[in-house]
Amino acid sequence: MTKQSNTKDMLGRSQLTPVDKARKIFLDHLPDTVSEINTIRIEDGLGRITAENINSPENLPAFPRSSMDGYAVSAKDTYGASESMPAYIEVTGEVFMGELPVGKVAKGCSFKIPTGGIVPDGADSVVMFEHTVPVDDTLIEVVKSVGEGGNINRPGDDIAEGDCAIPLGTKLRAQELGLLAGLGLGEIPVFRKVKIGILSTGDEIINHTDKLTPGKIRNINSLTLVAQASSNDTEVTDYGIVSDEKAVFLETVQKAIDENDIVLFSGGSSVGMRDLGEQVIEQLGPPGVLIHGTALKPGKPILLGMSDQTAIVGLPGHPVSAMTCFDLFVAPAITKLSGKRTRTDHQPFIEAELTRSHNSAAGRRDIVRVSLESREGKVYATPVLGKSGSISVLSKADGYFIIDEPSQGLTDGETIKVYCYQN
Amino acid sequence: MTKQSNTKDMLGRSQLTPVDKARKIFLDHLPDTVSEINTIRIEDGLGRITAENINSPENLPAFPRSSMDGYAVSAKDTYGASESMPAYIEVTGEVFMGELPVGKVAKGCSFKIPTGGIVPDGADSVVMFEHTVPVDDTLIEVVKSVGEGGNINRPGDDIAEGDCAIPLGTKLRAQELGLLAGLGLGEIPVFRKVKIGILSTGDEIINHTDKLTPGKIRNINSLTLVAQASSNDTEVTDYGIVSDEKAVFLETVQKAIDENDIVLFSGGSSVGMRDLGEQVIEQLGPPGVLIHGTALKPGKPILLGMSDQTAIVGLPGHPVSAMTCFDLFVAPAITKLSGKRTRTDHQPFIEAELTRSHNSAAGRRDIVRVSLESREGKVYATPVLGKSGSISVLSKADGYFIIDEPSQGLTDGETIKVYCYQN
Repeated sequence: MTKQSNTKDMLGRSQLTPVDKARKIFLDHLPDTVSEINTIRIEDGLGRITAENINSPENLPAFPRSSMDGYAVSAKDTYGASESMPAYIEVTGEVFMGELPVGKVAKGCSFKIPTGGIVPDGADSVVMFEHTVPVDDTLIEVVKSVGEGGNINRPGDDIAEGDCAIPLGTKLRAQELGLLAGLGLGEIPVFRKVKIGILSTGDEIINHTDKLTPGKIRNINSLTLVAQASSNDTEVTDYGIVSDEKAVFLETVQKAIDENDIVLFSGGSSVGMRDLGEQVIEQLGPPGVLIHGTALKPGKPILLGMSDQTAIVGLPGHPVSAMTCFDLFVAPAITKLSGKRTRTDHQPFIEAELTRSHNSAAGRRDIVRVSLESREGKVYATPVLGKSGSISVLSKADGYFIIDEPSQGLTDGETIKVYCYQN
Repeated sequence: MTKQSNTKDMLGRSQLTPVDKARKIFLDHLPDTVSEINTIRIEDGLGRITAENINSPENLPAFPRSSMDGYAVSAKDTYGASESMPAYIEVTGEVFMGELPVGKVAKGCSFKIPTGGIVPDGADSVVMFEHTVPVDDTLIEVVKSVGEGGNINRPGDDIAEGDCAIPLGTKLRAQELGLLAGLGLGEIPVFRKVKIGILSTGDEIINHTDKLTPGKIRNINSLTLVAQASSNDTEVTDYGIVSDEKAVFLETVQKAIDENDIVLFSGGSSVGMRDLGEQVIEQLGPPGVLIHGTALKPGKPILLGMSDQTAIVGLPGHPVSAMTCFDLFVAPAITKLSGKRTRTDHQPFIEAELTRSHNSAAGRRDIVRVSLESREGKVYATPVLGKSGSISVLSKADGYFIIDEPSQGLTDGETIKVYCYQN
């Protein structure tokens, strides 16, 4: 938990921290996870994070059930059965879906049974329809033997009573909700949503619906950041555009800190704006600013800080930079606070051939946005470039690739891993 | 638009259609896209699909803007400047954010300018701060020349007036919303949400919160299918559990068809239930049943049909099968109706080493669920297996791999592509 000392170079610029180190310092300062727990109905559970190990209150299935349409038999009665030497078995009853079987299967006999039907007493297996030939209404030929327990799900086969069905920290997907329904668990404890407050600042920033006058810039970052932060396990508050007059800005950030787990502000990338951000984070109390800028393109001028237990992130004013910093620093902070234990830390990718060389500076991580195109079964990735501050490039990108710190760039024809934006 | 003829084999079972062929027949019968268009505020736009090409109503930027903190100059005044032979330039003004510049930059002079500031008349480029050394308050040394247009975004550089900013059929992500905000477009036309109705049927099915009695099975599929179908461009109606008494079932499916674009029902996998599904789809009017079962594991007994312009899908009763069929048949149908033009048809994956051999039957496509684990920088995939009807396997899977029709299986040690469930 070392706080980076605020070293500056000869020009008074803060020194840049490598991305991984900056992220580690930031995440290490965050509290482990939100502490409040909500009890919710599973119908509202998609994307929420379990706050306990969820154990099975019962055996699943609760009763021995057939996994096939067929005949419930004693396996012994079928031994040695074949096409040329079938076993002849009487049909003395039938099991109906949703009902307890009536009676017992006697030796040499069977009950007709549907998939999911309760296996009647006296039977220990189910012969599939496909392995039988009807002789008449009460007699079948079994042409293939079945083993004991064959085509039967025994009580607890799926999950036994008391077993952990879903561990603590699981982000609930469709399949977990199905499992909870199967166990009859109508309500479950989940961590409360991570609260994220978003501010835009700068006296040149106007609402996107306002008339543009010379020198003004429409507010883009509130829209993009709210969209990036929105998910089933977050609660996002948009504080709108806040004056960069220090007293006003400080007061609004303080209010946002009181109401959220993470506060994001984005301002101009100008030196003045940056200084204001640093001053305000320092003034909001320890630990204050943790990171002044990272060796990242785009996204260099990011500020990462904490006021007590609340994270404060000063994002660059350029929308592309702000979005990139969100992905690299804010998204992992949300994950940590949400209580989610990642199942795997691998990110899916698409392999593609780079169509154009791309330079990078050694010691810097570059995040390069690309558009993808398929030709003859092969995928090609073309960097979508724009002047700094361009926002049209944003919507041309299908994903991005990474040029790591040691590399000075990649040449066309190289195979790259493209991480896709959600689409 | 050929409807598959209902051929049956010797045992009266319908013949199985290969997955790709089944999907094509189904998708070909669907209408192209929903026809209604909604006008929405961009704040509500995440995940919606644009119903028109969205053209830029203006130049972006509207004014020439600096992309750096520095000094607005005439590039000619810096030519030949170097560390050893700097150009001396007077600072005669300053541009403030959000304000029109006052005055004009004269020859040999400059205005201080922040990132995003409007470039003043007389200047054609911006020298970065980093390439200047202050002499006093009104004089700087420029130590590196700048080209004409350097560090300036000219009007329309990003998007010119009238250019297509976002094409028809784009699923709006954070970046598209940012672009729309930048263009001052507060409202946009999108396709209405795809309406999906979901029914569970079978007299053995009970609500997941009801007490389990012998032979009954809790309703799992309503939970999983609603979760799978839920997205920002869909509107899901859960019709709950419907009796499998034919008149009742038919009436509810008819109501669901009247109210939705796609109707899903899931029932037991028993033969009786399947027959009921087929009869009802046929009775609801042409084209009726298109596909009776596919060469897919799990998911063989799927029914795909249409009643006029509404898709009807009879999903297998097993939750794992139903979820798999949703991914393979229902998800592409939703995409087609939504109006979304996919940017790329490639699905991101994770490369992993298979830890256990897995057999398949030639001519059948297998979807095998796996859990992922990393050891020493390498990813390993282990099939999560369970008896047919097991639901606990659902939540152990991080994703799946595909064994295509010609293959009879894969052996351990082979490299596979794992497609991840959203997490």
